[in-house]
Amino acid sequence: MYGQTIRSAISIAATAGLYLSFAMLLPAALDFYFGNPDWQVFAASSFVVGSICLGTAMATRGAPAPFSRRLGFLVVNLLWITLSVTGAVPLYMSSLGLDMADALFESVSAVTTTGATVIMGLDEAPPGLLLWRSLLQWMGGIGIVALGLLVLPFLKVGGFTVFKMESSDTSERPFARFSMFIRAFFAIYIGLTASCALLYGVFGMGELDAINHAMTTIATGGFSTRDASFGAFQSPGLLWTATIFMALAGLPFSVMILFAVRGRLDALRDPQIAAYAGLILVLTVLIALSVRLGNGEDFAHALTHAAFNVVSIVTTTGFVSADYALWGPLPVALLFLATFLGGCSGSTSGGIKAYRLVIIASSVRSGLMKLIYPHAIQPVRYGAVTVEPDMQRTVFLFVCAYMGIWALGAVALSATGLDIETALSGSITALANVGPGIGPVIGPSGNFSSIGDAGKMIMVFLMLLGRLEILAVLVLLAPAFWRD
Amino acid sequence: MYGQTIRSAISIAATAGLYLSFAMLLPAALDFYFGNPDWQVFAASSFVVGSICLGTAMATRGAPAPFSRRLGFLVVNLLWITLSVTGAVPLYMSSLGLDMADALFESVSAVTTTGATVIMGLDEAPPGLLLWRSLLQWMGGIGIVALGLLVLPFLKVGGFTVFKMESSDTSERPFARFSMFIRAFFAIYIGLTASCALLYGVFGMGELDAINHAMTTIATGGFSTRDASFGAFQSPGLLWTATIFMALAGLPFSVMILFAVRGRLDALRDPQIAAYAGLILVLTVLIALSVRLGNGEDFAHALTHAAFNVVSIVTTTGFVSADYALWGPLPVALLFLATFLGGCSGSTSGGIKAYRLVIIASSVRSGLMKLIYPHAIQPVRYGAVTVEPDMQRTVFLFVCAYMGIWALGAVALSATGLDIETALSGSITALANVGPGIGPVIGPSGNFSSIGDAGKMIMVFLMLLGRLEILAVLVLLAPAFWRD
Repeated sequence: MYGQTIRSAISIAATAGLYLSFAMLLPAALDFYFGNPDWQVFAASSFVVGSICLGTAMATRGAPAPFSRRLGFLVVNLLWITLSVTGAVPLYMSSLGLDMADALFESVSAVTTTGATVIMGLDEAPPGLLLWRSLLQWMGGIGIVALGLLVLPFLKVGGFTVFKMESSDTSERPFARFSMFIRAFFAIYIGLTASCALLYGVFGMGELDAINHAMTTIATGGFSTRDASFGAFQSPGLLWTATIFMALAGLPFSVMILFAVRGRLDALRDPQIAAYAGLILVLTVLIALSVRLGNGEDFAHALTHAAFNVVSIVTTTGFVSADYALWGPLPVALLFLATFLGGCSGSTSGGIKAYRLVIIASSVRSGLMKLIYPHAIQPVRYGAVTVEPDMQRTVFLFVCAYMGIWALGAVALSATGLDIETALSGSITALANVGPGIGPVIGPSGNFSSIGDAGKMIMVFLMLLGRLEILAVLVLLAPAFWRD
Repeated sequence: MYGQTIRSAISIAATAGLYLSFAMLLPAALDFYFGNPDWQVFAASSFVVGSICLGTAMATRGAPAPFSRRLGFLVVNLLWITLSVTGAVPLYMSSLGLDMADALFESVSAVTTTGATVIMGLDEAPPGLLLWRSLLQWMGGIGIVALGLLVLPFLKVGGFTVFKMESSDTSERPFARFSMFIRAFFAIYIGLTASCALLYGVFGMGELDAINHAMTTIATGGFSTRDASFGAFQSPGLLWTATIFMALAGLPFSVMILFAVRGRLDALRDPQIAAYAGLILVLTVLIALSVRLGNGEDFAHALTHAAFNVVSIVTTTGFVSADYALWGPLPVALLFLATFLGGCSGSTSGGIKAYRLVIIASSVRSGLMKLIYPHAIQPVRYGAVTVEPDMQRTVFLFVCAYMGIWALGAVALSATGLDIETALSGSITALANVGPGIGPVIGPSGNFSSIGDAGKMIMVFLMLLGRLEILAVLVLLAPAFWRD
């Protein structure tokens, strides 16, 4: 491994940490405004983190290393580790009394847009701290879209490749002109967040709650300012606003950019969008019917909560509007299954993601046809496009690694003493960056604070693995990666 | 679909049913000898089933259809359905008072060598009935080895291909001479069963118990003559005898045939054997240590029971020697994970099977290397042999179908009202043909009788799907299969 590559990677990560230290001034200002002494925590964190990052950036200054896949993998991993650790500093130093494991868990849960929390008593927590959690998720969301659109495709571990594959006409690629894309993306991301916050306000949320929830909605993160999550906001207007904005945030940003830049909706024909919408629809209807028939609830009420929680889990947001553990066996099983799925490629959501599901479904169909007609040509299709064997292999590779790591994660969690239900759902909810699990401990009405430090560190690793599409982390574990 | 193909398939299945009706005379004789009135049930079943099958075989007589893949798929499906239904007839008519769903579940659990039972009070059940259950499993075991070695490879859905791939030298293929293979297989299967029965007898089992358990050990079926399964036979000699014979039965029969026919152990180098043995070893040691440390049990005792239950589940036998639900979270999680694995290809075991795990592990390694060196050639290997892309695709196809059907099966079971733990483990224990699940309902101390009829029928479907390597059943659901 060349020294220049490592130096460049550290330099980039330190620069990102420096930006994060500036961001700490926002919660500092908020706490100062409200006369909350925690402003000093954020100011001090900003100074300490900023100094260290600045020093590191200066020390590693120099000609940037030529772009290589190794540099890419190193940067991506180092970036998320830096954001996680620096994000944890003010949480650790805050008045909440979190220990280091708690602070790191909360920070990783934020920057990976997972949304699992170890904090109890959010309703009384200082506003700066609540803003910091939401801000970390919001910036984590920007990071993951940028990663998925700009970096991961070059590393061939998923992301934008699907969209590129789709647009045969180069003139349709909005990314040919880089800066326009960047501007469009920020405009859409900020615009969606602002619209969401506005509607939350219109439907009755206070301004701080509205801003916090809007940021964690668009990032499909799911941190709330209340222990009861969206259970504290029971008006249908608020629930449906959240449902719609979560669903939008699970769409590929490329589609929204195309629409914004050229006013064209062609990209909506992306087959993953149909799969994503179809899965949400089927799960919602099944659960709403099951709740209506099983528990005799009003259908509109059942539909509202079914749609909210299905969308929340499929988009890997993780807001909770009701204790769905009480809805009966079928809804619980469906919501557990939904934890694996994920939204669209190029969104802030995690999980397997709809484009992989489309490719797998087409592969299974093609494989069965091959068993019947061994000599017929049975291409695997993604919409109108043939999926090349290389792409098929990457998808299968991802899914096998995903299921294998889920299983190993569950075994590791059970070794810390967690029961099988908590272990199985804790592993997948971390790996898919969802948030809540099932069962009494980490279920919709639970909290991750009672999980031991070892369990928290396992989940920290799983959240980062899942956020970086698994393979981008696993390559670092291969000895060959470190050889010259 | 040509009429001749369908006629031929029905004719073959009817002939198999006819043989099964002859086999019913064995339990009839046993019950007659013990003066148990149930001999009439078996005699009558034999007569009725035999007449129907003979009539069907006569009606469908004629020139056999030329071999085709469609004929193969049809025969395989029809064969297992016929064995299941005819096997259920004496169970339904017996003095146990089983209803139709129970009788069918028990029969399918037998012929698929699953070993899940709905019968309570086995210790007092008539000997003929116990023999019939064991005999069905034993014959099911013969059927599945024959299927895996002779039929499935031609249909390209797994089985013998692996072994063929391995033996580059044609002179090493014992299957070139068909009749010698058939004789060697029967000699080994009967020889193993007889040795196992003998040792069970030596270590203190009564002769009927010994014969029944030997048959269900070698078939990796797991039906017992006791409600407590092997919990009723606590001597270390019996437990280790069972452990060793289950482990042997999980090996590829091809290896044993090679050894028997040519006295060569080369085939032991088959990489799946190392993976199979390694998994058993790691799981056993982890569980034994966990039980030793967590529950303070004597290590020899812990090791005996850990080895027994790990081997029982990995080989998909399903005997139970102790209520491992009480061993703590890690053993339960590991045994749940073990339910997915399965033994070697070409054995009577179910599950994913070790050769697929070897190929997946090599694919993941190769895929990661490709991410680091995109232009290097990174073949997927199975031992010294390169796995062709076609074979890789079939393995991935199988694993995706396996995981997908597991998930759908769990959702379907939860829709019948089963809790998530029972649904998740019930689906996989049926699909992998293991037997016991986890949780209070179908766990090691449980029984499948309390599951409703709908749940039983779902599990019947899952057991058949798993036994026929999934894809051989799924093709029948493709409309293209039925078009001319």
